[in-house]
Amino acid sequence: MMIKEQIIDQIKKKRSFLCVGLDSDIDRIPLFLKNEKDPIFEFNRRIIDATKDFCVAYKPNLAFYEAMGPKGWEALEKTMAYIPENIFTIADAKRGDIGNTSSLYAKTFFEYLNFDAVTVAPYMGIDSVTPFLKKNKFVILLGLTSNKGSRDFQFTELKNGKRIFEEVIEVSKNWADNDQLMYVVGATNAQELRNIRKIVPDHFLLVPGFGAQGGSLEEVVENGMNKDCGLLVNSSRGIIYADNSEKFDEIARIKAKEIQIKMDQLLAANNI
Amino acid sequence: MMIKEQIIDQIKKKRSFLCVGLDSDIDRIPLFLKNEKDPIFEFNRRIIDATKDFCVAYKPNLAFYEAMGPKGWEALEKTMAYIPENIFTIADAKRGDIGNTSSLYAKTFFEYLNFDAVTVAPYMGIDSVTPFLKKNKFVILLGLTSNKGSRDFQFTELKNGKRIFEEVIEVSKNWADNDQLMYVVGATNAQELRNIRKIVPDHFLLVPGFGAQGGSLEEVVENGMNKDCGLLVNSSRGIIYADNSEKFDEIARIKAKEIQIKMDQLLAANNI
Repeated sequence: MMIKEQIIDQIKKKRSFLCVGLDSDIDRIPLFLKNEKDPIFEFNRRIIDATKDFCVAYKPNLAFYEAMGPKGWEALEKTMAYIPENIFTIADAKRGDIGNTSSLYAKTFFEYLNFDAVTVAPYMGIDSVTPFLKKNKFVILLGLTSNKGSRDFQFTELKNGKRIFEEVIEVSKNWADNDQLMYVVGATNAQELRNIRKIVPDHFLLVPGFGAQGGSLEEVVENGMNKDCGLLVNSSRGIIYADNSEKFDEIARIKAKEIQIKMDQLLAANNI
Repeated sequence: MMIKEQIIDQIKKKRSFLCVGLDSDIDRIPLFLKNEKDPIFEFNRRIIDATKDFCVAYKPNLAFYEAMGPKGWEALEKTMAYIPENIFTIADAKRGDIGNTSSLYAKTFFEYLNFDAVTVAPYMGIDSVTPFLKKNKFVILLGLTSNKGSRDFQFTELKNGKRIFEEVIEVSKNWADNDQLMYVVGATNAQELRNIRKIVPDHFLLVPGFGAQGGSLEEVVENGMNKDCGLLVNSSRGIIYADNSEKFDEIARIKAKEIQIKMDQLLAANNI
């Protein structure tokens, strides 16, 4: 369990707002791990050992675990049990359905797997989101995503002059306080962070798309950091697949530390 | 594997366009089944035996299986193996993510679990949807959903005069032909089916919200049926939880047959 103040404390203590994405793919992990009984858990265990000093959150991407069936779920359960208590955990699941179905997804991620947060898609509206609003848990609603397809609908202009992503954030911010609600805003649309900060000055933003997808950390901070930091910047492939040898975890540690050092400087420059 | 023509054949042969939703919940199935080794599979097996003559599709709702962890996945795998080949299978999963992640979800549902179709959320745009466009498989994109929250964003008016759900359907219909793409349109918004048919006259529509959620079958048919039928109308709770005794499957059979008889009349009235 981690509440907003604890996330802020950890950011200040570790001098980092890095989230490591555990997009752990059986076809991409180092070959030598495939002799292990549970290769994906072994991979995650070593990545966690290597990076836990430099990040404040882990974000397993559910697609990667589901693609392996029951074995994937077991690897995920073991991974969740292994992540230290003071690190925030995000189920990157992008769920959202009618009320009774969203309730079950909430049960899966918050009770069964004990995540602190889950990513949720906004299209179906308030009753698809509220079942995820549990005490001391976070909904991270898709605001502006990092992919090219974000241009298809999210930027479309409404009659009221706003774009759809702005309307989604504007309307949904009334569904819960910022100690239960965060937003996904892609680093590839960093210039929009400034507008989004006008709508939600105090919310935490989960920022994917840094690294492999091409977003810039400096630009994200310049446009999106608030007095509490207010950012969790995710890197997945750039850390966990930086190397493919028996030293993959050492290299992941170096990559995570490099980012943490940059983040320390950026925090300091913003008087945090 | 089922292509569009085979779905139409089955509808004509069975005189039904019923989809049975397998929202199989360990807390709602008859008590006596809990002594079985795999209660959820036993429940599904009996529901399938009882209803397979009266429906053309089954739609397991992924949330219900995931909430049970690895055991849920095993029950789902067995259920998928048990469904007769000439019945269309829909993974009600409402997924949608960046390309490499959507690809993995597609692998899970189409290869690992061998579904014919998967429901997908549109918010992230084309590159979140195209990885699901596989040969002889269907994407069923959320158009207008059956829940109250559909009012929050889907009906919001755009600068171009359309509402968001109309824009989603209008834009996305160019992403694939109607032998790979269907839309979800809730029965609770049946009056909008007439407008949607102007945008996509030939696509199949998956229509939830009939029964427990209050939609009317006659209204759906009046506004949404096309020359091929073009509808898959789903009922979940109204069939599978119609009775809670040892005769639950007999009652489910009666409920499914009642709907099929109505559907036969509605097909005939439309010269199908």
